[in-house]
Amino acid sequence: MSSETKEERKLALVIHGGAGTISRALMSDEREAAYRAGLQQALRRGWEVLSGGGLALDAVEAAVCVMEDNPLFNAGRGSVFTHNERHEMDAAIMSGEDLRAGAVAAVDGIKNPIKLARRVMEATEHVLMCGSGAEEFAREAGFEFAPPEYFFDELRYEQLLQARREDEVRLDHTPLKKFGTVGAVALDTRGHLAAATSTGGMTNKRFGRVGDTALIGAGTYADDQTCAISCTGHGEFFIRTVAAHEIVSLMKYKGFTLKEAAEQVVHVTLPELGGEGGLIAVDRTGNISLPFNSEGMYRAWMTSGSEAQVAIYPD
Amino acid sequence: MSSETKEERKLALVIHGGAGTISRALMSDEREAAYRAGLQQALRRGWEVLSGGGLALDAVEAAVCVMEDNPLFNAGRGSVFTHNERHEMDAAIMSGEDLRAGAVAAVDGIKNPIKLARRVMEATEHVLMCGSGAEEFAREAGFEFAPPEYFFDELRYEQLLQARREDEVRLDHTPLKKFGTVGAVALDTRGHLAAATSTGGMTNKRFGRVGDTALIGAGTYADDQTCAISCTGHGEFFIRTVAAHEIVSLMKYKGFTLKEAAEQVVHVTLPELGGEGGLIAVDRTGNISLPFNSEGMYRAWMTSGSEAQVAIYPD
Repeated sequence: MSSETKEERKLALVIHGGAGTISRALMSDEREAAYRAGLQQALRRGWEVLSGGGLALDAVEAAVCVMEDNPLFNAGRGSVFTHNERHEMDAAIMSGEDLRAGAVAAVDGIKNPIKLARRVMEATEHVLMCGSGAEEFAREAGFEFAPPEYFFDELRYEQLLQARREDEVRLDHTPLKKFGTVGAVALDTRGHLAAATSTGGMTNKRFGRVGDTALIGAGTYADDQTCAISCTGHGEFFIRTVAAHEIVSLMKYKGFTLKEAAEQVVHVTLPELGGEGGLIAVDRTGNISLPFNSEGMYRAWMTSGSEAQVAIYPD
Repeated sequence: MSSETKEERKLALVIHGGAGTISRALMSDEREAAYRAGLQQALRRGWEVLSGGGLALDAVEAAVCVMEDNPLFNAGRGSVFTHNERHEMDAAIMSGEDLRAGAVAAVDGIKNPIKLARRVMEATEHVLMCGSGAEEFAREAGFEFAPPEYFFDELRYEQLLQARREDEVRLDHTPLKKFGTVGAVALDTRGHLAAATSTGGMTNKRFGRVGDTALIGAGTYADDQTCAISCTGHGEFFIRTVAAHEIVSLMKYKGFTLKEAAEQVVHVTLPELGGEGGLIAVDRTGNISLPFNSEGMYRAWMTSGSEAQVAIYPD
């Protein structure tokens, strides 16, 4: 049998639910179990798409949607509150086959920002839409909006009040230091790569700050020639180093393996500037890499012929 | 005398005022003279800063401000109208010394968006702010706002009405096909690089579309290790290829010269996807490159020991 047959091609799916200081001491068994279950559910949904012969694009979108719908993760429904008690969500998706990409920044009321990012990619000539303009596009496209109650969460609201009292901007979405972002990368049966990332941003955020999630090349990138990447961490550092595209470049022009390139960025390039976080990546042959320089990263992965894995702390 | 003395170090400044189809047949002598004078004025202002021993950052900001204040260029005062008869301006600036960067997207009423981008870089921990949030930041920072009359231009308004009639989004800001953006890159006496880009976007633009100008790595990048770049063209293609950072990567990891890297991106990478435009670049030793794949690009440049040059068409 040829290695070109559809059945033999390796599939790979990796997801993350954010990185940061996730201290075992402060994490209850119950809370940890809930995070693990949430990751497992998202991984399963994406894997169903992939293993059914579906597109990597559909798999990453499906996995991210599950996490956007889960209040535990800082994206979609679980998005943190801005200073003005609103939500400003960012999301991006990219197709490695043709370098098409779509993204939205600072949108409020959208149930699944990752679906809106995909619509921008597929239905317009644009890549990035922001703010009220992006919401207008969503309304005209018949997108699903959810009322403020849908996004309301007592814990997150208390976090906002606390952050306001402390007069600081919080990147965390729990009392622990955590960079709230979700993401997925996949390789499908046709050999195509895709990446998707979604976030609710920072608690008490002001001034329409946009992080790396929505920026193609910074927090999200996919190129069939090399790999697909989704980042999570202190976004400004990922923007300044163009982190996702830096990994692509190290593979393409310096001959690095996926693991070498991903680890270089996470353990050398970012820390040199003081940048904390992690990322997930998959290359064109199905190798995966999940490095982080923070205490933990919510993550799960599955490849052809191996069991689903879920992890939070370093192994 | 050592080559390390301040006086001997090479200085370089390159600016652009947009690329596109600039047909000689449709360009009046008077109009061409006005563009040339505008470019010369901006170059002179930036060069005064550089030759006085000033920072590359100050030089690129000064040159871009002159073009933002000139109604001929689609940036600042001369910004085109959006569908809703507003202005949505984008700008970004980056320091090659420490990879600090600042940017604003979709801001209205700001006299000099490039100054606001620099303030984001220097006064906050953020890189990118968008929309009304960025305007709120500007107000709190005591920034200069200008009334709608300041940005009103009969020709641009007529362009909007015409674009609405034709129900299309125009990238041009004249009856000719032109990508309206301004930018500058510089190398200063201390050997530091900087890049700045500013744009008024697209006539009849909707939905809060953000192009490559505001995106670090796409339309703007600077790294003392390699070069500084400012792009102009059909922004979505520059985003998908992460054009500015691609040039940095080709130099850093593939050993390309500035000219080789810049020409690869403009004449191979972008056209492969259908992307039209150009860019200006300067490397750490003062070499400059100004490739474009469109009919023309408004541009001007000056380096130590050479006269100021202004050009619009291919030479």
